[in-house]
Amino acid sequence: MKPMDIEKESFAIIEKELTTDIPAEYKPVVKRVIHTTADFSYETSMTFSKGVIEEALKAIKEGVDIVTDTNMAKSGISHKMAEKFSCSLNCYMADSDVASEAAKREVTRATVSVEKAAKDNPDCIMVVGNAPTALMRIRELYDEGIFVPRLVIGVPVGFVNVASAKEEIIESGMSYIVARGRKGGSNVAAAIMNALFYMAADDDKEWRRC
Amino acid sequence: MKPMDIEKESFAIIEKELTTDIPAEYKPVVKRVIHTTADFSYETSMTFSKGVIEEALKAIKEGVDIVTDTNMAKSGISHKMAEKFSCSLNCYMADSDVASEAAKREVTRATVSVEKAAKDNPDCIMVVGNAPTALMRIRELYDEGIFVPRLVIGVPVGFVNVASAKEEIIESGMSYIVARGRKGGSNVAAAIMNALFYMAADDDKEWRRC
Repeated sequence: MKPMDIEKESFAIIEKELTTDIPAEYKPVVKRVIHTTADFSYETSMTFSKGVIEEALKAIKEGVDIVTDTNMAKSGISHKMAEKFSCSLNCYMADSDVASEAAKREVTRATVSVEKAAKDNPDCIMVVGNAPTALMRIRELYDEGIFVPRLVIGVPVGFVNVASAKEEIIESGMSYIVARGRKGGSNVAAAIMNALFYMAADDDKEWRRC
Repeated sequence: MKPMDIEKESFAIIEKELTTDIPAEYKPVVKRVIHTTADFSYETSMTFSKGVIEEALKAIKEGVDIVTDTNMAKSGISHKMAEKFSCSLNCYMADSDVASEAAKREVTRATVSVEKAAKDNPDCIMVVGNAPTALMRIRELYDEGIFVPRLVIGVPVGFVNVASAKEEIIESGMSYIVARGRKGGSNVAAAIMNALFYMAADDDKEWRRC
């Protein structure tokens, strides 16, 4: 069985096992997350701000900057797709200036990374699969009128401060794709970004058939 | 709340919510996978060959080569820990010779990557979070007496050929850590490797308290 056939067969299995009626525009994202995790709980935990898919595809086609909160998420995003749409892929977590600033102020590196993104990539898509403090800082800077990301993919995983940080994004007024609750991760974050890329690439075909 | 406190609190929550009696030596691995996924189904899906933890810690302390089946898994493994134990981190999936060989033979790049590992890193730990064909090729080369990895971390995620490929590893006679069924992923693979690193680093302390 060829890799493309396996992917097709996998998506057919997922489609068959879905238990809720997911709107067509969200389905490619939800299905790709389930494809990445084999976890059908994302079917009900994933939530989208109104119009977010159209906005995301427009941003991608305009060559939006993408900023991730882990190098693992950056590594999982399709570099081929990013190149196709001239989207830059950035992660500031391992930058030495971020580390020293975070240590000095006794905040997380994720907090400082968000500030760096707000400065260097003010119209970016923020892809957050790990750090609730990244979401908290995004919300603060948004409330202060300093940072308005084109889209926040908010899917950190965890047991402490995670579910509440996601709710703060949902309530903010920003464009978002969020997996409510504890679950998520760098793999989920990358899968969402990749689903959006594939939708942008395939536009009027594949994803509208979902 | 400091990052270390959050991790401590998270592990305390996981410990409290566990529903089965996991043997002490496996617990740090299972708990770290749950920490990475917030998915308690790993509590029952994870399975270990006899003595695998002691063997893995010995291999780490001897500076074992580590080969992953995705750059994402490689990216998720603690580079600090790998350096501490002089363990090399390798992924051959993006190598041009692997791609051309795979295209020529009409097999997956994962298949050719395993062959490359068998040649260049015969005593390695194989970390497989994505490709069931990697597990299948490992089993074949093992049965032919060509490749005996020190340990196979077999946690690909997926809907086609995945669960069966994992069972083939369990039945092989090799040392393994496997998450049975569909679930897994590069993040899970990296979490297992990291848990083993932390156990090796902390040895007689942290993990025996679990």
